[in-house]
Amino acid sequence: MAEHDAVEVILAKRDGGELSDSQIDWVIRNYTDGVVADEQMAALNMAILLNGMNRREIARWTNAMIATGERMSFASLSRPTADKHSTGGVGDKITLPLAPLVAACGVAVPQLSGRGLGHTGGTLDKLEAIPGWRAALSNEEMFAQLEDVGAVICAAGTGLAPADRKLYALRDVTGTVESIPLIASSIMSKKIAEGTGALVLDVKVGSGAFMKSLSQAQELARTMVDLGTDAGVHTVALLTDMSTPLGLTAGNGLEVAESVEVLAGGGPADVVELTVALAREMLLGAGMTDVDPADKLADGSAMDAWRRMISAQDGDPSAPLPVAAEQHVVTAPSSGVLTRLDAMAVGLAAWRLGAGRARKEDPVSPGAGVVWHARPGDTVIAGAPLLTLHADDPARFERALASLEGGFDIAPAGTAFTPDPLVMERIA
Amino acid sequence: MAEHDAVEVILAKRDGGELSDSQIDWVIRNYTDGVVADEQMAALNMAILLNGMNRREIARWTNAMIATGERMSFASLSRPTADKHSTGGVGDKITLPLAPLVAACGVAVPQLSGRGLGHTGGTLDKLEAIPGWRAALSNEEMFAQLEDVGAVICAAGTGLAPADRKLYALRDVTGTVESIPLIASSIMSKKIAEGTGALVLDVKVGSGAFMKSLSQAQELARTMVDLGTDAGVHTVALLTDMSTPLGLTAGNGLEVAESVEVLAGGGPADVVELTVALAREMLLGAGMTDVDPADKLADGSAMDAWRRMISAQDGDPSAPLPVAAEQHVVTAPSSGVLTRLDAMAVGLAAWRLGAGRARKEDPVSPGAGVVWHARPGDTVIAGAPLLTLHADDPARFERALASLEGGFDIAPAGTAFTPDPLVMERIA
Repeated sequence: MAEHDAVEVILAKRDGGELSDSQIDWVIRNYTDGVVADEQMAALNMAILLNGMNRREIARWTNAMIATGERMSFASLSRPTADKHSTGGVGDKITLPLAPLVAACGVAVPQLSGRGLGHTGGTLDKLEAIPGWRAALSNEEMFAQLEDVGAVICAAGTGLAPADRKLYALRDVTGTVESIPLIASSIMSKKIAEGTGALVLDVKVGSGAFMKSLSQAQELARTMVDLGTDAGVHTVALLTDMSTPLGLTAGNGLEVAESVEVLAGGGPADVVELTVALAREMLLGAGMTDVDPADKLADGSAMDAWRRMISAQDGDPSAPLPVAAEQHVVTAPSSGVLTRLDAMAVGLAAWRLGAGRARKEDPVSPGAGVVWHARPGDTVIAGAPLLTLHADDPARFERALASLEGGFDIAPAGTAFTPDPLVMERIA
Repeated sequence: MAEHDAVEVILAKRDGGELSDSQIDWVIRNYTDGVVADEQMAALNMAILLNGMNRREIARWTNAMIATGERMSFASLSRPTADKHSTGGVGDKITLPLAPLVAACGVAVPQLSGRGLGHTGGTLDKLEAIPGWRAALSNEEMFAQLEDVGAVICAAGTGLAPADRKLYALRDVTGTVESIPLIASSIMSKKIAEGTGALVLDVKVGSGAFMKSLSQAQELARTMVDLGTDAGVHTVALLTDMSTPLGLTAGNGLEVAESVEVLAGGGPADVVELTVALAREMLLGAGMTDVDPADKLADGSAMDAWRRMISAQDGDPSAPLPVAAEQHVVTAPSSGVLTRLDAMAVGLAAWRLGAGRARKEDPVSPGAGVVWHARPGDTVIAGAPLLTLHADDPARFERALASLEGGFDIAPAGTAFTPDPLVMERIA
């Protein structure tokens, strides 16, 4: 490997230039090995955030991160694989019904997930609300479960793209999270290393998402689709609305319960719509075009796959879910039509109630969260419950209520309301 | 003090905003105390380098650095004080004759200096070529010498603006040196904390300087003059040419010898011109307008002050200066007029010969360096010596010669040559 030095690489990007393949390989490898110091990588990340990277640089950066760890392969499985990644939204429990649904259609879903940080919940945190369920599986357990059940949601091992783990922790404390090249390479390095055959990206747009604008989300989606395609992974992105939270719940146990409703053939229409839309893309990516996932929700086979998936990881799918000790009801201040329920406001409230964590090492409350009793377009009545807050400690209600201030709008009865489409755009 | 957090401060500057007074105070204090981590300050420095700071932010940043340490005062001295700072150039030995010259005129010069890093030499490194001379003085020794001799050149203590020492070391390894707000605040925090009554800034412009263009140098000079003026220090800047190295020597002992020639009433015309010009500004700043420093060079009183200044710090002003073991002569490849001698080429050559250091902890050679036998405008003869390289180890000649390639131009005899003015502009 060519020799470089950290300052040379920083100056190249700081002064608006392109990093060479050799500079990128060198800096990622040597940062992972501790030769390039955190403060040097922090300066480089800030220069990348402000000056950007082109398609070649992003692809090389991603590949260099993959090269720091192991690469998995599902080629030995008897069925094709497809995975999904969401950029994170409020009430986004879609992975929970989606993985068993796709498995029920005959495509294996190896969903390596993370825990949540900030106002969007983490998939593992949600599933850990189920008594007995465990996130940590060995590679052998994961392969066996994929062959047997067809779906596994578990903690990503430390062997995939270790450079990314180190880089992400650094970006989190240095104000360098919000860079499209860095976000795209972080997500895609793990997904490509994981070895999935097909990948569907759910790129969230709106107040509750990291990407607030459609143009940012388009750029991120296009960047990730290019990276996946270049790496031989059949990759598609759906841009989906995250100005309104998904479903009617945000919180760990609350979202599991809502997911089970969807698997039982009920549940909120938007959760069902997005679950089916993403399932269709995953099946398409895996070359499985003769099955309609909506049928597998209706006939109970998705629910069967869910119960087997949870049981295989020592969870009890029949056990009651934890309930928070305290509830606080927010009533509608006037009658009319709910025209806006802000995803960020709800996400922050759920986080402050204990559903999320401020630091990596914090625990989360399995019962805490927010239930809303109306979605935009619904009629609300003054004095009737609009939201219910759940927390283990009533002292948490005050700050959660503060985050909900200005978080919804009620228009006079009879006001026309046209909901925005949930799936805004498809990028392939 | 208001509470902030590091990421909030980084995001404010990253996204192009202004830092509040409270954010600046908080981040400088907490970086000095180790609460804000190196990687966070590195990201902030890169954001400052790329997005800038306005006059209020730079002033606050400087004051926050001053507030992390002690402030000195020379009010108890019987004479006014004036100091000089150069942004660094090749062959820039001006401090050596200047400090005793100004002292001989009746103004005290407290010159707290540093060691060199890179292609420009450090004043302390030069004086340490004098047998016995020591750079480290206690505050009591420094005050006594200022009262008695009127001039002291010594190592800046660790008590002045400790934030700057920590920040400078960080910037050096993170590619964030070349930021005008950060350079200006670094220089001025130490000079303001030092307590000098007047300050003259020698801002170098050209190939051998940090500021390559006149507009950059003007911006740096204006920024520093504003900072000094706002802090009650009588501050003036001269923009001086550093496309050509100063005098006829670059190297530690070599530059001491040249300085002594100037103090003896001889020496290269450009060194004399700049020394006298800066002395006049220092005297003006100190309110001393009835003395012409040129007279004090001519009558030997500057040389007397030099000898007393060196002796007071245990140096022997009569001792022979160290000479490098090996010499290598570069002859003129053609006859004609020397029209260009590049400061950066000469500076790099001297550095590679051992006069400078690559790392803070490296030693320097007291005898190493470059002597040039002609200055731009002079006639040169093919085959006659043009430069002499001095090194302790002949293995160093090869890389030094490489840095001199393309470093000078010789035009046919009779070619008209008009030298650029040495003092390009005055900013007050």
